[in-house]
Amino acid sequence: MHSEIQAKYEKYVHHLRTLSDLNAAIALMAWDKEVYMPPKGAHFRAQQMATLEGMWHQKFTEPDFVALVQHLHERHEQLDESATINVQRTWQDLSRSLKLDRHFIERRSRATSEAYQAWLAARKFNDYERFAPALQTLVEVKREEAQRLGYQAHPYDALLETFEPGERVAHLEALFYSLRDALVPLVQQLQRQPQVNADFLHQYYPADEQWELGIDLLRNMGYDFEAGRQDRSPHPFTISFSPQDVRVTTRIDPNNLAQMTWSCIHEGGHALYEQGLPTTQYGLPIGQPASLGIHESQSRLWENHVGRSCWWWQYHYPKLQQRFPNQLSQVSLDEFWRGINKVAPNLIRTEADELHYHLHIIIRFEIEKALIEGSLSVNELDKVWNERYTTYLGITPPDARSGILQDVHWGHGSFGYFPTYTLGSLYAAQFFHKCLTDIPQLPEQLSKGNCQALHSWLRETIHRHGRRYLAEELCQKVTGSKLDSTHFLQYATEKFYHTYKITI
Amino acid sequence: MHSEIQAKYEKYVHHLRTLSDLNAAIALMAWDKEVYMPPKGAHFRAQQMATLEGMWHQKFTEPDFVALVQHLHERHEQLDESATINVQRTWQDLSRSLKLDRHFIERRSRATSEAYQAWLAARKFNDYERFAPALQTLVEVKREEAQRLGYQAHPYDALLETFEPGERVAHLEALFYSLRDALVPLVQQLQRQPQVNADFLHQYYPADEQWELGIDLLRNMGYDFEAGRQDRSPHPFTISFSPQDVRVTTRIDPNNLAQMTWSCIHEGGHALYEQGLPTTQYGLPIGQPASLGIHESQSRLWENHVGRSCWWWQYHYPKLQQRFPNQLSQVSLDEFWRGINKVAPNLIRTEADELHYHLHIIIRFEIEKALIEGSLSVNELDKVWNERYTTYLGITPPDARSGILQDVHWGHGSFGYFPTYTLGSLYAAQFFHKCLTDIPQLPEQLSKGNCQALHSWLRETIHRHGRRYLAEELCQKVTGSKLDSTHFLQYATEKFYHTYKITI
Repeated sequence: MHSEIQAKYEKYVHHLRTLSDLNAAIALMAWDKEVYMPPKGAHFRAQQMATLEGMWHQKFTEPDFVALVQHLHERHEQLDESATINVQRTWQDLSRSLKLDRHFIERRSRATSEAYQAWLAARKFNDYERFAPALQTLVEVKREEAQRLGYQAHPYDALLETFEPGERVAHLEALFYSLRDALVPLVQQLQRQPQVNADFLHQYYPADEQWELGIDLLRNMGYDFEAGRQDRSPHPFTISFSPQDVRVTTRIDPNNLAQMTWSCIHEGGHALYEQGLPTTQYGLPIGQPASLGIHESQSRLWENHVGRSCWWWQYHYPKLQQRFPNQLSQVSLDEFWRGINKVAPNLIRTEADELHYHLHIIIRFEIEKALIEGSLSVNELDKVWNERYTTYLGITPPDARSGILQDVHWGHGSFGYFPTYTLGSLYAAQFFHKCLTDIPQLPEQLSKGNCQALHSWLRETIHRHGRRYLAEELCQKVTGSKLDSTHFLQYATEKFYHTYKITI
Repeated sequence: MHSEIQAKYEKYVHHLRTLSDLNAAIALMAWDKEVYMPPKGAHFRAQQMATLEGMWHQKFTEPDFVALVQHLHERHEQLDESATINVQRTWQDLSRSLKLDRHFIERRSRATSEAYQAWLAARKFNDYERFAPALQTLVEVKREEAQRLGYQAHPYDALLETFEPGERVAHLEALFYSLRDALVPLVQQLQRQPQVNADFLHQYYPADEQWELGIDLLRNMGYDFEAGRQDRSPHPFTISFSPQDVRVTTRIDPNNLAQMTWSCIHEGGHALYEQGLPTTQYGLPIGQPASLGIHESQSRLWENHVGRSCWWWQYHYPKLQQRFPNQLSQVSLDEFWRGINKVAPNLIRTEADELHYHLHIIIRFEIEKALIEGSLSVNELDKVWNERYTTYLGITPPDARSGILQDVHWGHGSFGYFPTYTLGSLYAAQFFHKCLTDIPQLPEQLSKGNCQALHSWLRETIHRHGRRYLAEELCQKVTGSKLDSTHFLQYATEKFYHTYKITI
């Protein structure tokens, strides 16, 4: 690199690292708020976080920095490959940010916080009408946001871009509708089979023992406790302050072994991704995760493809029985494995099994796409919601709380977020299929408690690239083909036919 | 207030609150580093903290802000009383900051970090010579700092101002030498008495039980666990993110009951002060502690005047015996109380008793004053140190590690800090004497486990004023007289004559 452009690039790097340092402080405040903050601390903590977030936005869109990035972007042929990609990504992020002026952001922030308050009240009173007016306002703001950000085919594309850069409605429709059309008959077929028993998961499992189990599972996955830690919080999450300090949290219900176990493996998958990002690219796009969908692919690959596989439990189940002899000594490995893969419709997304889950997501996708394109009114929302549940899942929510009010996402203004959950599963299936091809001995390794080859494969093919590639590009590079739903459907059919003892 | 000046004052308040929000983030990162951060997190955490500290300094000395404060300062007759004081204090802080340019601060920071590294190495090799050259450089930088900051009578005054605004060498000499001249014969007299037994403190006290004891003691003092929490760390400390989130840490040695117990009460005293600061003045001088000396007065008042009193243990000792029956059932209340007040010379400051402690401090005060005025060379320091220990405490350090290398303060460049420890004790004695006059029934209340009146008295007379008064002014206002050492000496003589059964 020419020394002048080099100096400018270093200035850009320094600025982004300052922003990242600020972000790490905000993240630490968010972590602490969920795990250790005493209740009265909430008021000033909210103010402190808002101040730092404001400083972040101001610093990110500082005119000098914008000019610097533009300058580098226009001369990117003088930069090396990584630098070019970093500058390109930052330029895209900045361009989007600059399309939203302060006035609009304040308006959006007001609409969001009012919608959130309304959602809380609506949930409390189990009354969708209390949410609808504020949601209406917020939807209008998000429609305006889409107009401001710009799009080619569909306004919802502009919002998707926030969570899943490069993703488009047309592509999602193709993916999701083929998925839906295969899943609906599949789950109906499974429901007609003799049901599997999962009652043994709902016995008393002491919290301390569950905690130790979680730590052991994370350790076995290769989660580095020297570069992270686990704590307890009301909702499990993963948070990163740098690739060398990536923390997970878990929730323990002493009467439900499943909750801690698979949320722990799920968060562990997220955490391995963050721990695997290149530290040399700290603060830069290549040092960041590719997208929410790719992030979710890592958690779901571990949670479902590994953590609900018979291979994994061949190694872990005897240890689990030793840990909980009173609860599990009479349950065989086969019964256990079938139990943890039980399929049954449920009104609540976060409690859904691996198959129904996507029907929950597709309903939300259809609704929010329609809201943003303006073809569906907020007033009909609860009706539409209940109709879709009846059609797709065969169950009808008896009230708003177990229906349209169950998720916080719309109250947070996060339109475009839900699809990333299903994308995550589709990517996971496609990645894992490739991994099994690359490492034929993986099932045997997993059945002996050895996750090293899998861990290295993920690190090498996915983690270390950060945001170097768009999600779609990464998928193409890793698996040799574009994302499609066939790998997931093939995996699901095989696994659940096996679980439900269906022979073809 | 006139509306124009009012608007300017609000702008000033907003700016200081932004700084305070940033500071809270830095403090949270510091807290986390000591209590929960995984080891590999250290590298990026250090960088993140340095970035935020740099942003803080830049924002504090921003030309627009300086101009705003100067404007308000020059028109302070238009402000109300609290606003006037806030502006005055900020103007003083800013004026001092502006006297040190960036170049000097970088030089100081380099000299400090080199001295710290040298101190670590010197301690490791038990060799003062490895520290001396870096200390020499740092002393020269601190002498330059004193010149830049300016002073009237003594260059050390300029450094004292950082930790104890308004404090002066001449005043400290008068206080400390009268104290020294009374303490040396007093501790010698006590040493000639039959010794008290404190061995029972050094039995096995399980960590979990000690932890519970600490929580109970804090609760009894009136520490608000809804606005704080206790964690464990290698060195106990108190840290505040707002008056509604003030945290303490403790260290537990299972073979030493004393360490946890009195450090817990000590930190509790610090924490009550922070929890008692006015939330309406968040981020402003009046919302901050008056000085380190006043802060220390709060911890020592609780630790020594309350936590080592026979009143306190009349209530707590039977409970302590119940908690540790094997260890303490054969130790009477009188034996316990005398044991916890045992006086014996010790080479290590942090392990010193209530009386010898001040001889440790006075030695440091004498040395650092001489270093800063240039009458003592760094090369003679260990010799001078050992001589003073022999003269004042009657013991001679056998090596540098238990002598001149024991404290980190000089390695951190904190010249002027040590005196605040002794000032804290003197203020504590004078405050507590007044409190006993104001609340004659206090001993009876304490002996029944009731700390409410004491807590309210401290909150009302000291905590709520924050930095409204200089330490000396506060003392005058609370006790009706200037700080002197007679209250401490009177308290000490009475208490330790009693402990050692000396009758006059």
